Amino acid sequence: MKRLTILGSTGSIGTQTIDVIASRPGEFRVVALAAGRNVTRLAEQARALRPELVVVSDEHAARALTPELPAGTRVAFGRDGLVEAARHPEVDLVVCGLVGALGIEPAYAAVDAGKDVALANKEALVAAGEFVMARARATGALILPVDSEHNALHQCLRGENPAEIKALWLTASGGPFREFSREALARVTPEQALKHPTWVMGPKITIDSATLMNKGLEVIEARWLFDVGPERIRVVVHPGSVVHSLVEFVDGSFKAQLGVTDMRHPIQYALTYPHRVPSTLAPFDLVAAGPLRFAAPDTERFPCLALAYEALAHGGAAPAVVNAANEIAVAAFLAGRTGFLDIPATIREVLKRHGAAAATTLDDILAADRLARKTSADLLASGVKS
Amino acid sequence: MKRLTILGSTGSIGTQTIDVIASRPGEFRVVALAAGRNVTRLAEQARALRPELVVVSDEHAARALTPELPAGTRVAFGRDGLVEAARHPEVDLVVCGLVGALGIEPAYAAVDAGKDVALANKEALVAAGEFVMARARATGALILPVDSEHNALHQCLRGENPAEIKALWLTASGGPFREFSREALARVTPEQALKHPTWVMGPKITIDSATLMNKGLEVIEARWLFDVGPERIRVVVHPGSVVHSLVEFVDGSFKAQLGVTDMRHPIQYALTYPHRVPSTLAPFDLVAAGPLRFAAPDTERFPCLALAYEALAHGGAAPAVVNAANEIAVAAFLAGRTGFLDIPATIREVLKRHGAAAATTLDDILAADRLARKTSADLLASGVKS
Repeated sequence: MKRLTILGSTGSIGTQTIDVIASRPGEFRVVALAAGRNVTRLAEQARALRPELVVVSDEHAARALTPELPAGTRVAFGRDGLVEAARHPEVDLVVCGLVGALGIEPAYAAVDAGKDVALANKEALVAAGEFVMARARATGALILPVDSEHNALHQCLRGENPAEIKALWLTASGGPFREFSREALARVTPEQALKHPTWVMGPKITIDSATLMNKGLEVIEARWLFDVGPERIRVVVHPGSVVHSLVEFVDGSFKAQLGVTDMRHPIQYALTYPHRVPSTLAPFDLVAAGPLRFAAPDTERFPCLALAYEALAHGGAAPAVVNAANEIAVAAFLAGRTGFLDIPATIREVLKRHGAAAATTLDDILAADRLARKTSADLLASGVKS
Repeated sequence: MKRLTILGSTGSIGTQTIDVIASRPGEFRVVALAAGRNVTRLAEQARALRPELVVVSDEHAARALTPELPAGTRVAFGRDGLVEAARHPEVDLVVCGLVGALGIEPAYAAVDAGKDVALANKEALVAAGEFVMARARATGALILPVDSEHNALHQCLRGENPAEIKALWLTASGGPFREFSREALARVTPEQALKHPTWVMGPKITIDSATLMNKGLEVIEARWLFDVGPERIRVVVHPGSVVHSLVEFVDGSFKAQLGVTDMRHPIQYALTYPHRVPSTLAPFDLVAAGPLRFAAPDTERFPCLALAYEALAHGGAAPAVVNAANEIAVAAFLAGRTGFLDIPATIREVLKRHGAAAATTLDDILAADRLARKTSADLLASGVKS
């Protein structure tokens, strides 16, 4: 029986994690759940799963939740609550399904406590990958990527020598606007962007997919997760999202992982690793899935991808800065307060101002994150020039 | 320094093996070479590689070769010569690049002597897979497949638990006649068939590719090589031969190996295993290689594939019988003595007559092989009805 904490239990990854657990009765015990403000959903989950601990965003939500909880479940809140759930002494594996920089500290805490991590919250590696991975090596914690691309790379790298990797190839759907001109991109609305062609995802990641920043963040994530330099991480546009990613080896051989575009697959892989267990989902049909097409990405129309590589070249806190600027700009776009092309414009300007920030501790990263958020908000309020 | 025997050194696999060795100076020492009747080419190879032993088909060829050999190289011939080269005490790895049933005994001898084997000579596993693999398990010999499909499966299975395989998917180019009607197939000539679209291969295997018997033999080979039942081995037509094969796991995940269609890749993989070393060949271009298309095979027009599964269902010597009948029928077709559709017709009839033959020893297999050859020749001489 594997004992779990699920951070972000009411979100897209969290609910799909609970689906997977329900399909494997008797194999998992949920010890702790953490969510934001969706108290109703969290209470339902708590009644079904009877965790020892539930965590919500603040004291107000905690008070609303308390009368809804089953006996034996206690409540905590905020940053301390998340860290407590991540470090819970009874837990073997922490599912990090929070969205954004909020998940950095709990992910680090889990790894620091030697817990294996099923990581969907890519910001933990984007902003603090060097620290999180170093700590994981020290404590022996496994980091099992849930992002379909990194999960695919993880699968392709089983039984392989990392020194024999020539390049990691991340596939990108290209987003709903991959054929749009720059002029058309300037007029894109949140409603258009939220219609993602293939994967069922939350709104923030859906916008990131449309700007290609999602792929940029994944490049940074892959850099730390697999300890491969950015010059050996490539992106290839593959609209069908059938091939989830590929590894090129020094001998010229490529290995790819393919399958149905359903996040429950990589979630199950991470939950049951190192074992593969039968899936209850519809099987993958290779003949129906094809033809499989690949194209080079266009960083002229989608500059976010180039900005991510630029952040990696800066090093230090620059990836955290880019990630923070992106979060603020995407939130402004979703709220209708700024245009689609203002997202890369904001990130570029914030990176210019704060990209040289050094980072020798996790606190430096968190400070750079806060500063970048403030600058981004100020820039957006004053009208960034895209 | 890895010490090698190359069986079939003047053939397609043999010469490409020597190319790979030449690209990695100082890493390999060729101890023995064996070829058929191409004395001129073999003498050139012996002068360049200075093996301890060379083997030719018969005493006549041995006498012709002797004056051409460098000092320190001795000559042997025939079946005994092949077995001596395969068991040579100084050798670490035997490249089995002979064509047809001739290679069965030397491959078994190599494995019996505990030598690792780079196996291109699929008949050794098609006809005698159960015996060869059992002997390999007993002596600890590794069998490294050089066929691009099995090599791909080998790569996809690194680091995986064989119990978690759901199916092996062999890709098939479909051959040059994949769009032909049955009527058009009846009129196919050897010249048409020898124009294989993608791989550079010898004439026998090229005809096998056109009839899909090559894929049928590969199904049988995979059955023994990976110890997977025939009901879990699938064939998918993939005209570009970019994806060399795929493994489906119980969790619904597929892993594929892709690359340039050049046999020197799988040969190098087998020669340097478990290490991957840089290739001097042109790199694979994923964007240029696509789109990748997949289709179900048509066993109505290409019955050889179904005959191979039928042979596996029979068990015992039936795969050896099918393989032998195919060799005789293909030779008759290449000599212009029979039609393209007479190849499956001959195999079907010989399988009907000898498919129930039991096999408890390698000698039983070899006897069934001889009998099937005789029956096939008789049938073809009397005009088989296709």
